[in-house]
Amino acid sequence: MAVKEDLNKDTSISTQQDIIMKKLRKLPNSICINIWKVGRDDPRRVIHAVKVGLALTLVSFLYLLEPLFEGVGQNATWAMITVVVVLEFTAGATLCKGLNRGLGTLCAVSLAFFIEFMAEETGRAFHAVFIGASVFLVGFSSTYLRFFPSIKKNYDYGVVIFLLTFNLITVSSYRVQNVLRMARERLYTIAIGCGICLLMSLLIFPNWSSEHLESSTARKFEVLAKSIEDSVNEYFHGKDQKIGEDDSEDPTYNGYRAVLDSKSSDETLATFASWEPRHTRHCHKYPWQQYVKLGAVLRHFGYTAVALHGCLHSEIKAPKGVRLLFRDPCIRVASEVSKVLVELASSITTHRQFSHEALSDHLHEALRDLNSAIKSHPRLFLGSKNARKVAALKHEKEISSPVTLPSLKTDSSVLLQWKRSRVENQPKETNEQKQLRPTLSKIAITSLEFSEALPFAAFASLLVEIAAKLEVVIEEVEELGRAAYFRESSDRDDISIKINIENKRRNVNDLHAPEVHQIAD
Amino acid sequence: MAVKEDLNKDTSISTQQDIIMKKLRKLPNSICINIWKVGRDDPRRVIHAVKVGLALTLVSFLYLLEPLFEGVGQNATWAMITVVVVLEFTAGATLCKGLNRGLGTLCAVSLAFFIEFMAEETGRAFHAVFIGASVFLVGFSSTYLRFFPSIKKNYDYGVVIFLLTFNLITVSSYRVQNVLRMARERLYTIAIGCGICLLMSLLIFPNWSSEHLESSTARKFEVLAKSIEDSVNEYFHGKDQKIGEDDSEDPTYNGYRAVLDSKSSDETLATFASWEPRHTRHCHKYPWQQYVKLGAVLRHFGYTAVALHGCLHSEIKAPKGVRLLFRDPCIRVASEVSKVLVELASSITTHRQFSHEALSDHLHEALRDLNSAIKSHPRLFLGSKNARKVAALKHEKEISSPVTLPSLKTDSSVLLQWKRSRVENQPKETNEQKQLRPTLSKIAITSLEFSEALPFAAFASLLVEIAAKLEVVIEEVEELGRAAYFRESSDRDDISIKINIENKRRNVNDLHAPEVHQIAD
Repeated sequence: MAVKEDLNKDTSISTQQDIIMKKLRKLPNSICINIWKVGRDDPRRVIHAVKVGLALTLVSFLYLLEPLFEGVGQNATWAMITVVVVLEFTAGATLCKGLNRGLGTLCAVSLAFFIEFMAEETGRAFHAVFIGASVFLVGFSSTYLRFFPSIKKNYDYGVVIFLLTFNLITVSSYRVQNVLRMARERLYTIAIGCGICLLMSLLIFPNWSSEHLESSTARKFEVLAKSIEDSVNEYFHGKDQKIGEDDSEDPTYNGYRAVLDSKSSDETLATFASWEPRHTRHCHKYPWQQYVKLGAVLRHFGYTAVALHGCLHSEIKAPKGVRLLFRDPCIRVASEVSKVLVELASSITTHRQFSHEALSDHLHEALRDLNSAIKSHPRLFLGSKNARKVAALKHEKEISSPVTLPSLKTDSSVLLQWKRSRVENQPKETNEQKQLRPTLSKIAITSLEFSEALPFAAFASLLVEIAAKLEVVIEEVEELGRAAYFRESSDRDDISIKINIENKRRNVNDLHAPEVHQIAD
Repeated sequence: MAVKEDLNKDTSISTQQDIIMKKLRKLPNSICINIWKVGRDDPRRVIHAVKVGLALTLVSFLYLLEPLFEGVGQNATWAMITVVVVLEFTAGATLCKGLNRGLGTLCAVSLAFFIEFMAEETGRAFHAVFIGASVFLVGFSSTYLRFFPSIKKNYDYGVVIFLLTFNLITVSSYRVQNVLRMARERLYTIAIGCGICLLMSLLIFPNWSSEHLESSTARKFEVLAKSIEDSVNEYFHGKDQKIGEDDSEDPTYNGYRAVLDSKSSDETLATFASWEPRHTRHCHKYPWQQYVKLGAVLRHFGYTAVALHGCLHSEIKAPKGVRLLFRDPCIRVASEVSKVLVELASSITTHRQFSHEALSDHLHEALRDLNSAIKSHPRLFLGSKNARKVAALKHEKEISSPVTLPSLKTDSSVLLQWKRSRVENQPKETNEQKQLRPTLSKIAITSLEFSEALPFAAFASLLVEIAAKLEVVIEEVEELGRAAYFRESSDRDDISIKINIENKRRNVNDLHAPEVHQIAD
């Protein structure tokens, strides 16, 4: 028996060892997979890492090669520090940091020499007190300065460098005699470091923050498009979900979240993009802040979309039969909304303006269909039309309010009127549009009145609300297109005229609009 | 005439000069106001700026005082650099940076000496090649390492410092003979700098990220409470708004936005808070990530609240008369929701657990009132109750679906049943709760069926949805209270028992729970 137990023990120990050994054997493999994954997710990361390695090797030549070292000396360390600290992932970030470093160093050197000049007149003991006091004062005021929002946004790093350099020079001046030479040499080496960084980030496989911002904005439109379609499809086709179910594993909800949580990354990208020289060839500042504004409008749009998604997880649902009746028109509205979003995304990606009418025509049709679908199911409406009118009149008398129910308007006339006035009032758009937009949601909502399918009302009203808010998004993209001089694409003739004008403005080297030149040729 | 024109010209020039002079005279004033405002908004900023100034002055003594300079020498610059770079606004951020700097430097020094040891064997020309290659390889791999999310979150700065120090030492070793001594002295001065930073940030008027995180979380609850109440009040009392009106100037919407855009600041604060030693005296890690999770749940809750707010700006509104009828119960539900939110905020601020029943009892009552208010207006429902039943049956037959309309349940019985089962099933809460929660929203929604007030349905359903989602928020705060060992406050006896247990765990110096000790005494 004892032998058998010992045997068992031995086997269990050996199996445990086996498991650990297997895990250990797998460990390098899983690490390799992780390393591979980080590179595969974004190959620019590998390129950036190679660039940093290359820049550092270049800078180390200042030390390693005899003739270079004789010229620069020990100050080569400053070039090294500059490369490590300044070379960032995107060109905009590198430019921002590099220029901040240069500016901060220059200001600091000037102030330090001014203070040095003032302090020279005094005795040695007083000199120390003077330096201590100025270190405290400059430290206090520049730290305080960093709390100003305008400084914090663009010049935070510059102020840090200013403080650093000022302190180093002022304090060193107490011991070292030839501070001017030291400062000059340090400036040279920092300039060399900045130069290598700019070379690496602007000329060799550059990563532009502006490109990143554009593509992430377009991506948000696509994600929203997919998520809205998925939500609506799931509402009609999917199995019923319970409210307690964890949202965090829901890919649709994660899609919404990616859009709704994008504020800080948008702002950072826009700040860095504003430092990039890429789009200033039109002799005007490229409207990066408009992307931030568009992001805010898109988030506002997303709140309604995510509330629509919430209908899937709540009990606020119509019975399956009611849902079935309105499935097709609702799905059509959602698919039209998502088509518009995809169209807007491609407008942003290709820098091409779109025709507002062509874009929203199908959507209006789909909304009208939803409306008539609701009307064409009189079985769902209780009471005859007369009874409804009588009840409405009765109710009006009872509460003695001057409100007239808007359901007497027929939908097609309203829609026609809306469209006509839109076409007529093209030039003085913005104000008119804003007044006319509510009509749209009125069409589909007012006809939902008196319906039996009340739990469905919340869903439908959110869907129509999404369609109405889409107008605001479309306007914002139009505004962006105007501010960023997107190419027109509404009419063939228009194109050629515009291209002639645009061509005069453009450089021949315009890499981002090869199609235009082809058309013009 | 000419004289008169000249006179006119003179006067206009002098008035222009006057305006410019006035503006110039006002300029210092407006700058002063701005400076004052930044300090008044958060007085800790002034304290932090003074602390930085003080720390820099202390460090400059290493240079200015003869005996100290003899000990440290030129390496004092490294202490200065450390103070400028490491001393951050909150204690957690300073600790994170300081420890990262220390760790990064140590790793770099070790690796640099290993490489130095390897390279020593080779000839001088090969030595240079070897150094260049290792600089490239370490530069590449540590830059690549920074793209790993787990590294990026906590150790990004450490990797930068590692790269910096490694390069400086390796490259210097080619020229300087006694690298070991240089590295040791540099480590000393960096340690002095880190020490001064930790002293300043941990002992003198410390700003804790953890406190900031707690207060900002509580603040979010309060903002949501106020915004929801304001939205509902405005819906019933305010003048009708148009959809085109600018949301950005709406204080209620700005309140929502502050909550919905808080993701990145929450995550940063939680990361820094996890470095702070403040709450680890219970011998367990304080659950800072739970705050991030709570923030996510709160944002999810906020999406519905902001959709409710959207009802103010859309045409999806019931006529004023209908709104008037349901004004009081709706406002009561909103005020109960906001009371619960304020209660949760105070629970987080005072570290005190709350009684789930006492919290949601009034809310359920308010929901029941809303329900009966809707039922007590038969004028608004078309057709008699019988007609409704017949129609419902007919409809069921026609679409031949197995769905039974849930409106046959009476609300009070459901609510009683819900409350009873809640009290009974206290120990095995979480699962039961999740299954029961939908009942709540069912109560108020199902009775809205067949109502004439259909546009009102979207608003009411969102309000009830808010009440239902509030349960998820309450659960998350309960979870936080459990994880963070909040004090019980449900029952007097419970308190004294818990306090005895807690007291054994706590230090006597517990500054954050003076009330408990008073009760125990």
